[in-house]
Amino acid sequence: MSTKGKVIKCKAAVAWEIGKPLCIEEVEVAPPKAQEVRIQIIAVAVCHTDIHIIHPKNTEFNFPVILGHESAGIVESVGPGVTSFKPGDKVIPFYAPQCRKCKFCLSPLTNLCVKIGSFENPLSSQNLMEDKTSRFTCKGKSVNHFLGISAFSQYTVVSDTNLCKIDSDVNLERICLLGCGFSTGYGAAINTAKVTPGSTCAIFGLGGVGLSAVIGCKVAGASRIIAVDINSEKFTKAKALGATDCLNPRDQQKPIQDVIIEMTNGGVDFAFDCVGGTEVMKAALNCTTVGWGSCTLIGVAMDSKEMILSPLEILMGRTVNGTFFGGWKSKDSIPKLVTDYKNKKFNLDVLITNTLPFDKINEAFDLMLQGKSIRTVLTF
Amino acid sequence: MSTKGKVIKCKAAVAWEIGKPLCIEEVEVAPPKAQEVRIQIIAVAVCHTDIHIIHPKNTEFNFPVILGHESAGIVESVGPGVTSFKPGDKVIPFYAPQCRKCKFCLSPLTNLCVKIGSFENPLSSQNLMEDKTSRFTCKGKSVNHFLGISAFSQYTVVSDTNLCKIDSDVNLERICLLGCGFSTGYGAAINTAKVTPGSTCAIFGLGGVGLSAVIGCKVAGASRIIAVDINSEKFTKAKALGATDCLNPRDQQKPIQDVIIEMTNGGVDFAFDCVGGTEVMKAALNCTTVGWGSCTLIGVAMDSKEMILSPLEILMGRTVNGTFFGGWKSKDSIPKLVTDYKNKKFNLDVLITNTLPFDKINEAFDLMLQGKSIRTVLTF
Repeated sequence: MSTKGKVIKCKAAVAWEIGKPLCIEEVEVAPPKAQEVRIQIIAVAVCHTDIHIIHPKNTEFNFPVILGHESAGIVESVGPGVTSFKPGDKVIPFYAPQCRKCKFCLSPLTNLCVKIGSFENPLSSQNLMEDKTSRFTCKGKSVNHFLGISAFSQYTVVSDTNLCKIDSDVNLERICLLGCGFSTGYGAAINTAKVTPGSTCAIFGLGGVGLSAVIGCKVAGASRIIAVDINSEKFTKAKALGATDCLNPRDQQKPIQDVIIEMTNGGVDFAFDCVGGTEVMKAALNCTTVGWGSCTLIGVAMDSKEMILSPLEILMGRTVNGTFFGGWKSKDSIPKLVTDYKNKKFNLDVLITNTLPFDKINEAFDLMLQGKSIRTVLTF
Repeated sequence: MSTKGKVIKCKAAVAWEIGKPLCIEEVEVAPPKAQEVRIQIIAVAVCHTDIHIIHPKNTEFNFPVILGHESAGIVESVGPGVTSFKPGDKVIPFYAPQCRKCKFCLSPLTNLCVKIGSFENPLSSQNLMEDKTSRFTCKGKSVNHFLGISAFSQYTVVSDTNLCKIDSDVNLERICLLGCGFSTGYGAAINTAKVTPGSTCAIFGLGGVGLSAVIGCKVAGASRIIAVDINSEKFTKAKALGATDCLNPRDQQKPIQDVIIEMTNGGVDFAFDCVGGTEVMKAALNCTTVGWGSCTLIGVAMDSKEMILSPLEILMGRTVNGTFFGGWKSKDSIPKLVTDYKNKKFNLDVLITNTLPFDKINEAFDLMLQGKSIRTVLTF
């Protein structure tokens, strides 16, 4: 019996309030409206940004909300006007829309899109559909969307600007990582920093994004990749992915930037901050070479921590830049990344350390908080 | 009678101590050693960086010193090993050496050179010749060089890496501006920001460097050039050079960045901070557009003031970069800029507001401090 046009009742993890575990609930998912698509989520990974939202220190978010944004699924039904998707299509939703009409989409210089809503507060924008209503109801209450995706639900509704169709023969439990972490870290190296063959790179923070940046540097042909984390357990995986040197700042007698400058005879060509926080950003910039050092900030610390620069560091030829979704124009690029994955240009599988049933989502959060997982994929 | 190989006694302005006017003195200028050139300075302009050194707040400089670094002159004699210069050559000395041998000179990515000495403290490096001695003596005391140039002296000695020969038919009282201010501001737009045709630019601070950045934006084909200064008297000149809009932050009801964002429907493509200071740097970055906004810091505030960034500004596609001597590889580029000047590609003359005899150097400093001059050229 077709569910098209009907409300679907299904399982979801609802974040009712800040600082509390998610609750597995039955939610009602309304049918898609114009230019919207309802998806059955098959696999969803937990990313640090999901944890960030419910962190007690984060005070700027409207609850209740269904989080989750690194996922893959199958189209259940489409709303009026949707022509590029049909039921049964395998898809990846993303929080970086591509409307292909706005001044940003029409520029080759950026992957931003006006559909993001607010560039000042991108985490809170897209928390409702474009008509300013939600498709989720739980216990009679409207529940917010998250980043235009809300993949911690067996079914969800997304705008057709936030979705791409992918090949039908791809394993959704692997490819879901293209929805955020992998694309962001990998693209930061490939698109934003534009890592060059033979260059020297330093990556601060070896979570899913940082390890994906390691992969990006390797694919770009970097000859030396210095991986930095305060958790030495991350080093085996970093080396397997291409890191040539692994450093734990806590094992060093001097500041990590000084260690890297010595190791590289003056600093690296490219540094990536995949941690956030004033001190790490400073170390990442400091460890780049004068003349042409590039420091790329990656979107994992969207809180209010400041980056403090000495202008002289910049005058001596360094650049600070940043990446949003790895600089990929999403609709155009994600299908190509899927092809690259199928052609074994890079390895996603090694980033997935755990697979759990969806009901154990809070366990997945704990694993990440304890530094015991890179990515946990949840399946329904 | 040739002065070659002999000590020359001549007039110079010596800065004996911090916070005090310069003293016109008779100094002794030793002959050039190996790879050095002794120059007769014909014209020298006063730049804010000269003033910065004797500012009472500046505590990190060794006195006495002969300042001056924006100049042009004629070769008097050359030391052993010098093959590219001969007496009578018209030359421009510069503080951005180009040895053509070091890893920086061999890279197309930068105009730095190891001969700068210290990249952490470039203002204090090159305060002695490469053999760690001075060529200046006054009243029996050794006097420091400044930026490898010391042009506030009728004769000076510079390394042959810090010098280029220019066409003999050029007016040295104009072309001296290529030694610092013009090249820096113009190059910041052309080389560092790489301003694109049809783009929108904002320039903060309309001194010699800022007005030269206006010229650079104009030559690069910017369609809108917004010039900002707290001294509205600068606006006539800015408009003459290509500024399309002039704003005085003190005349505005809201922060200047908000005014610019409104005027440009979202922010400029390129911003230039030609002032320095935490607030101006912040405004310059803030007023750039999300997606591809570029904020270029220009080397006029080499003091310790910090730049404070919100990482989110950077994650939304903005870039912060900086320029040293406008990114020009000095020996290669300055002669080409001289040709461009002769071909009227840009107008230097309008930047020169005052011409004074060298003895009135303290008056030239006062004019600049009072905002009454752009460039005063001193002649001997």
